[in-house]
Order: sequence, then structure tokens, then C-alpha cells
Amino acid sequence: MEPRAAIAQALADSVRALIVGHVAPDGDCLGAGLALGAALRRLGKTAVVACADGVPASLRFLPGAGAVATAVADDEAFDVAVTLECATLPRAGALAGAVRRARLVAAIDHHPDHVPYADLTDVDPRAPAVGAMVADLIRRLGVSLDRAMALNLLTAVVTDTGAFRYANATPGALRLAADLMAYGASVHEVVRAVYEEQPVQAVRLLGTALTGVALHHNGRVATAVLTPAALAATGASWEDTSGIAAALRGIAGVRLAMVFEEREDRIRVSLRSRDGARADRVARALGGGGHPEAAGAEPAGGLEEVVALALDLAAAEVGVVDDEQPAPV
Amino acid sequence: MEPRAAIAQALADSVRALIVGHVAPDGDCLGAGLALGAALRRLGKTAVVACADGVPASLRFLPGAGAVATAVADDEAFDVAVTLECATLPRAGALAGAVRRARLVAAIDHHPDHVPYADLTDVDPRAPAVGAMVADLIRRLGVSLDRAMALNLLTAVVTDTGAFRYANATPGALRLAADLMAYGASVHEVVRAVYEEQPVQAVRLLGTALTGVALHHNGRVATAVLTPAALAATGASWEDTSGIAAALRGIAGVRLAMVFEEREDRIRVSLRSRDGARADRVARALGGGGHPEAAGAEPAGGLEEVVALALDLAAAEVGVVDDEQPAPV
Repeated sequence: MEPRAAIAQALADSVRALIVGHVAPDGDCLGAGLALGAALRRLGKTAVVACADGVPASLRFLPGAGAVATAVADDEAFDVAVTLECATLPRAGALAGAVRRARLVAAIDHHPDHVPYADLTDVDPRAPAVGAMVADLIRRLGVSLDRAMALNLLTAVVTDTGAFRYANATPGALRLAADLMAYGASVHEVVRAVYEEQPVQAVRLLGTALTGVALHHNGRVATAVLTPAALAATGASWEDTSGIAAALRGIAGVRLAMVFEEREDRIRVSLRSRDGARADRVARALGGGGHPEAAGAEPAGGLEEVVALALDLAAAEVGVVDDEQPAPV
Repeated sequence: MEPRAAIAQALADSVRALIVGHVAPDGDCLGAGLALGAALRRLGKTAVVACADGVPASLRFLPGAGAVATAVADDEAFDVAVTLECATLPRAGALAGAVRRARLVAAIDHHPDHVPYADLTDVDPRAPAVGAMVADLIRRLGVSLDRAMALNLLTAVVTDTGAFRYANATPGALRLAADLMAYGASVHEVVRAVYEEQPVQAVRLLGTALTGVALHHNGRVATAVLTPAALAATGASWEDTSGIAAALRGIAGVRLAMVFEEREDRIRVSLRSRDGARADRVARALGGGGHPEAAGAEPAGGLEEVVALALDLAAAEVGVVDDEQPAPV
């Protein structure tokens, strides 16, 4: 039996299911998990949706988000544990133990570097979102969608495709979104809730980063430094820095954007790239890792040292050769 | 005969067609116009695509953009002139005369307030973009799409729906985008070309505006002032201000965002609203106009005077009553 059919069968046969998203959860694992949990409850099952890190503020609008657990008791027994978007079991964080204790573990993922750890593994690297895979799973379970499930699945697709801005915004992703809108959810509603309710201090911090952006290596590399002083001046916290590196990547000619956060005890580097430049290669050389176009690192050293090292690595990555003149900034 | 069928018939019978977009053209009228022009040429017609203001830099990637005319000679005769997204004929700008001189004028538009001026009028306010209407027209002409036409039509749909972020991102818009991707164009490619090639000075100016954002009326109104000094400091020009008001509207709780540009001889106000607040009402009270959620004005008076007046008007619009306490900023 192909894995998705086997997972559908195992869930249909189960009484109690645990559904686990990854640490630092996103709209995909949470939306997919909440939709799957609701579908299983519709079938009369007990379904616990859990995420070790809880639900971030921008995703609390998801139907059922209030019931997402951050832990399960040691003596809670589950017939099936389903992990969502966990390329390795440690991505389940503190819930990895609870997953291991289930009678059967099923993994649903779309990361190409998934390292199998489950009894049933359904990995489709071409799926735009795990939510698209779960939409198909719910169909196989014979459960018809309602508005709440559709909104959860739509959020999975919208967030994992960057609101259809990324290369994984396939025709299939667009058609699935169109189908889900038939249940009363809308892309506009998801975009509004996820992207257009920014805390004002995060907007001010983004402003500080954009104002202070520096270009290097013939304009192919953009950098910004976020200092504790900038945080204090804007009222922002380190939670408010997401999206800044991606905004810098949107500058004409930029292939690699790096944001340096001068945190209390370390420098945190967020990297975004495009046009063949590999954020993950630079991140790995800095002791971190990630995806080809989105990566991060927390190298040892002071700010100036880390910036200088990262810029050296970036020069090789964006293909600047020695005899090129630096661009005027 | 319904209007679109009649327009298809008139174009099929024509030898020379003029296709005209509106002043300050956007991706919808240009993308739709370029696709329609290519389709007519495929049928052996002569088709001139024209736009009085030419093609803005962010849309020069559109296939055929280099051949867009900004004027036609007084003695050029056309069998049919098709206006795209021109709610009134003056929206064709300096090309209105050339349109009037055509033997037959056809208007294709999706503005609900279209004022009929053409021999054949095809207005569909539910169409997400005129590009969607033109895609159907091209199908009726019996022309199959190619990658260039699909990229033009996809750009029309992507830009007029704010990359699917606006409420007009209907299931039909998503499905049309999916269909167009079958010809080798992609949403990612359009988004990249239109939104992610920002001049660095525009990004710095946006940063200045975001850093200096002020909240008023219990956080329901966000404002930013762009001064000549900010322009000088960032190297930006007044061409670089688009998108700033929309960014301010994305702050949590904000219903109306206003950006004040302190230009040489006047104050220019850009307004964006949501949640029932009407940007156009405030703009009209300032002597301008626009759409319910996107409007502008250039009222007489100095900066302080205009800001004070606009904030008074905004208070009424966002429903702040006297006994509410101002939000801490």
C-alpha cells in the first residue's frame, strides 16, 4: 500500500491520535494539523494537536488554535502519532518522546532531506505545503471540509508559498487554494491575518533596518545590523525581526541578504538569497544551516568579526571577482 | 449579441486595431493590452498597443513592452480602438483623440463606475482584472496562447489582485493564474519582476517612513511625513513613494494610513484604508478622490495645516469618539 493510503487506514482504525508540528511552528504545520485533527474528530476519534513551542501570535486566528497543546502527559497513550513537516524526529522538540511512545508513527513531510524515522513515511518534495498533502489525506478519510478546516488548509498553502510569491506556488497550489475558497475561507482573509497585523514596533524595527541597509560586492549583497539600541529605540524585541532579511533581498540586483542581530550573548545571522546564490552554503560556513534560499547561523565572535567573515564568504557565493570595482552605495 | 462577442467579431473583421491603456498604466492594462495585440497580430492584423504615459520601469520586462507607443499620428486610421480599464475616455490621456477617430470604439473595463463612451462596452465589475476579460476575448478569437501572451495576462491578474492579497483574489483569479502557468510563465517570475526589484533608494525611503510612523486616534490611524530632507538623505525621488501608505495600513489595528509628501509646491496625501474606513471619503474632503480603500489628494495649505485637517477628518472616518483615551504609542 502506498504510504498515504496506509496512513489513512491507520487513522481510520485508530481511537486516539496525536498530531505534532515542528518547533518554531509555521502556518503549514499548524494549519495542516488543526485541519487533520478536526477531520479525525468528525470521524469520532480523539485527536490531540500539539506543538512544543505553542502557537505564535500571528497564527492564533486559526480555528482551533486555542486547543493546541504544548505537551502531553507521560501516561497518555496514542494509537497513532502523525508528525507534520518534521524532517527529523528532533524537529518535534519536547514532543519527540510522546511521538515515540505511540503504537504507530506516521510522518508527513515535503522536505527533500527528510530522514525516515516513522513506521509510515509520506514525503512529497513537490508538494507546495504539507497542508496540500493533508487535504488529500482528509479526502481519503472521506471527511468533507467545512469553513474552519478549509481556512486551516488555506493558511498552510498561503504561508508555505509566501502568499504565492515563492517558486513553489505551483498551478496545483493555486487550484487547491481556489477549491478551498469554495468553503467560505479566502486568501485575502489569511493574508490579512498573517501578514497585515504587524505590531507597530516590528514595523519601526523593519524601518530601521531598511534605512540602514548597506550594499556590498557590486550591489549583490545587502546587509543590515540590528543593535540592542535599535531595539530599545523602536520598542521591538528579537521576536520582531522575521521578514527583514527577505525585505532586503527584494532590492534590485541583490542576490544575498544578511541581517546581523547583536543579541545579548551572540550574533545571530539571518540569510536570504536568490538567483542561484546559496544562503545555506554561507550559513554552513558560519556554523549554521537551512534551505538554499533561507538559512541562519549563530557564529562565535563579536559583531565586526562576524560581519567581516560573512562578507568574505558572501563574496565567493555571489561570484564577485577581485578586479571588479565595488558599487557606489 | 453580447458585448464581448461583438468586440471579438469587430476585431476579427478589422485590419488595423489600436489598443489603449489608461494614464499612469499598471500591469493590468499593459499586460492585457500586450496580450491582445499579440493575439491580433497572430491573426494577421496590424495592432498598435499604446499608453500615453509609456511603460513604467517595473513593467518593462513584459514581452513586447518596448513597442508600446505613447502617441499615434493624427493621420493614422484604425478600424477599431479598444480601451482597457478606462472608466472614462479622458483616462486614455493624450490618446483619447486617437481613440475617438477610430471607426469603432470598444471599451473593456471592470470598474463599477464605468461611464459608457464606446460603441461596444464590456464592463464586468466582478472580473479580478481586465486581463481576465481579455484572456476570454483571446479565446473567443480562436488564438491559442504562447508563453509571452500568458506572461502578459498573468501579470495583469497578479498585479490587479495585489499578488492575490486583495479581496478580488477570487477562485477564478487563482484558477486563471494556474491555467496561464501551463504556458511556461509563473507567478513567482511576475512577483519577482514587479515587486522584488526595488531601487535601494526606494527601500531606504520606505525605511524612513516606517521608522517615523505615528499612530493616532486609538491606534486606528497611521501617518508618516516624507520631507525633502528625507528624500535627500536616502537619494530617493518622489517616484519612489508608492507602496508606503499600503505598508502603514499593515500595522495591527490601523484602519486608515496617510502619507504626507512635502513636495516643492504642495502637500500630496496618499491614503489607504480597510475594515470599512473609507480612504476616498477623507480624500474627497481634502479635494481629491479615489477608490474606497486607496485614494489621494493634494490639498492647499502648509504641512502642519494639512496634517491637522486630515487627522480631524480621519477621526470621524475611523469612528473615534471624544471620550476614548488615546492609545499609548
